[in-house]
Amino acid sequence: MSDVLTPAAPDASALVADRLLTVAVVGATGAVGLELIGCLERRGFPVGSLKLLASERSAGKTCRFKGRDVVVETLARDSFIGVDVALFATDAAISQVFAPIAAAEGALVVDNSSAFRMHWDIALVVPEVNGALLASRPRIVANPNCVAAIAVTALQPLHARFGMTRLIGSTYQAASGAGAEAMAELRDSTAAYLAGEAFEPKVLPHPYAFNVFSHNTTIDPATGYNGEETKVMDEVRKIMSLPDLRVSVTCVRVPVLRAHSMALTVEFDQPVSVAEAEALLAAAPGVRVVNDAKANHFPMPNEASGADDVLVGRIRQDLSDPTGRTLSLFIAGDQLLKGAALNAVQIAEALAG
Amino acid sequence: MSDVLTPAAPDASALVADRLLTVAVVGATGAVGLELIGCLERRGFPVGSLKLLASERSAGKTCRFKGRDVVVETLARDSFIGVDVALFATDAAISQVFAPIAAAEGALVVDNSSAFRMHWDIALVVPEVNGALLASRPRIVANPNCVAAIAVTALQPLHARFGMTRLIGSTYQAASGAGAEAMAELRDSTAAYLAGEAFEPKVLPHPYAFNVFSHNTTIDPATGYNGEETKVMDEVRKIMSLPDLRVSVTCVRVPVLRAHSMALTVEFDQPVSVAEAEALLAAAPGVRVVNDAKANHFPMPNEASGADDVLVGRIRQDLSDPTGRTLSLFIAGDQLLKGAALNAVQIAEALAG
Repeated sequence: MSDVLTPAAPDASALVADRLLTVAVVGATGAVGLELIGCLERRGFPVGSLKLLASERSAGKTCRFKGRDVVVETLARDSFIGVDVALFATDAAISQVFAPIAAAEGALVVDNSSAFRMHWDIALVVPEVNGALLASRPRIVANPNCVAAIAVTALQPLHARFGMTRLIGSTYQAASGAGAEAMAELRDSTAAYLAGEAFEPKVLPHPYAFNVFSHNTTIDPATGYNGEETKVMDEVRKIMSLPDLRVSVTCVRVPVLRAHSMALTVEFDQPVSVAEAEALLAAAPGVRVVNDAKANHFPMPNEASGADDVLVGRIRQDLSDPTGRTLSLFIAGDQLLKGAALNAVQIAEALAG
Repeated sequence: MSDVLTPAAPDASALVADRLLTVAVVGATGAVGLELIGCLERRGFPVGSLKLLASERSAGKTCRFKGRDVVVETLARDSFIGVDVALFATDAAISQVFAPIAAAEGALVVDNSSAFRMHWDIALVVPEVNGALLASRPRIVANPNCVAAIAVTALQPLHARFGMTRLIGSTYQAASGAGAEAMAELRDSTAAYLAGEAFEPKVLPHPYAFNVFSHNTTIDPATGYNGEETKVMDEVRKIMSLPDLRVSVTCVRVPVLRAHSMALTVEFDQPVSVAEAEALLAAAPGVRVVNDAKANHFPMPNEASGADDVLVGRIRQDLSDPTGRTLSLFIAGDQLLKGAALNAVQIAEALAG
């Protein structure tokens, strides 16, 4: 193997798995950043040198990687010299500025923000669905919205066989989608509620303890859909190459820490068989069927948390469609893993492989 | 007014509001029973004498009513002598035996269990929807499933104008639907989770702290739908007099204490106007529109808890239906009030009025 200090070749296509890579994690101290570091270690990504970048506020902190403390540096324009792979877990505004800089330095960039997802010339990738787009080794790849990534992983094997024509979804989204501070607010506000104490929400706009609320993104006055819902609908269409898919999603925050669940109503262009759907899902990459009707055991966020697979269950013929072309499903996936860090590292593996 | 000790006339149609009534609450110490007592007091139901009945285990306990302690008696076959109105908040098995006994004694019975709901000759009533059925003063009236009662209250004004043809719903159901012990388990298991302690669920089949799970009723192997979902679908059809309504519901338990929320996709037989839908809902009895897009303020269980009205918001044209005939809604209602006790007392008011 080559020297880990060797700068990345400006031609990123020279990257191969038998060489250790210099990897940057940008936004390293956030909820997704920490999971990225964990995924790189757990999955044995060929990291020669790990560079952790964050805002000035977090610089000097340390994160554990392979038994060592790595010091977080302040993100700057010259941070990406010599970086082979840059994984961004930053706000769209930060990604917008620094992802192109990293790419210009020769790094392969996987960006977790919404900055590039809907750009016509940027690949938006869930490897199990459209990983073929990575063969051309694009310099910037967008990592999807968490709900979209989890949903398409479960939908693709069914679409490939039956042809999806309409999707209606209701989400049960965890705190982690709003970051580590929202997770802390859920814990703290719940503890206060149980103690009978007042609690003033600071991170989220509504009380979160034992409560449910519509996703806290801006409502589009033209459609009545909120920003999260619009992202999910747009991104599902793009990832699955179904620009005309009829889709409607209702995004709802529930008091769960880190895994998203969804009730999905999926219409196809031909009658579907529940048994065949279950068999297809059982054989699909990234999916685990959890569908034990006798034990009343179906996908739950507590079992999806920390799991790489998207859990799929409650697979049944939708009784509101007498033509037999519609399935109902209930799924759960880890928002920080398949919904964010795991998918980004899977993309990086494919790019660097 | 007549003497409160006067026995009820065997002909219940003789009941009039200018006479104080002998009212029995059966299952008085449960979550719904306590709310029934509260509703009777708060709404000024003409109670002359209140009889609280429960299993032997609860006999001797006291409940507050209008500033006095009322002692709970053991439910027995002779409990209903002289009772004008009997409100049952018991299991179906208990109602099956004792509701007919109460009716035979001349009481008007409102039964909150599932025992009589789908009997062809028993009225299943939400007063705002099909209260006209009470004009004939039926001896036993069934009070609907909580999800069905809350949903139809919001759907009826839209159906009356546009004609509902299909309903797809996903629920976010509170602990209270599984009784006071489930509410306690949610609190206790959450406290244990926050303290890092183990907790063994006793009331519900799955961990409830910061978790979501498919409703814990038996799955029908023929359809894949669980018992709760089947009840909701059957009862919505019956209450709204839409025997052929195409309907599918996914029932999910979320860590909320006492109000149910639902995401509803509602198809009509003609194009709908969002503005007209909102105006109809704003004018509808039992409904409160909570639909402030600018403030991101929509129906939430914490605001529905303790409220008589069903909160309705997120009223928008469903983007998955290009014909413009489908609305999306998000609603929340108190499971113990409109979903149970309040609706039962409203029925009793209409019967006794």
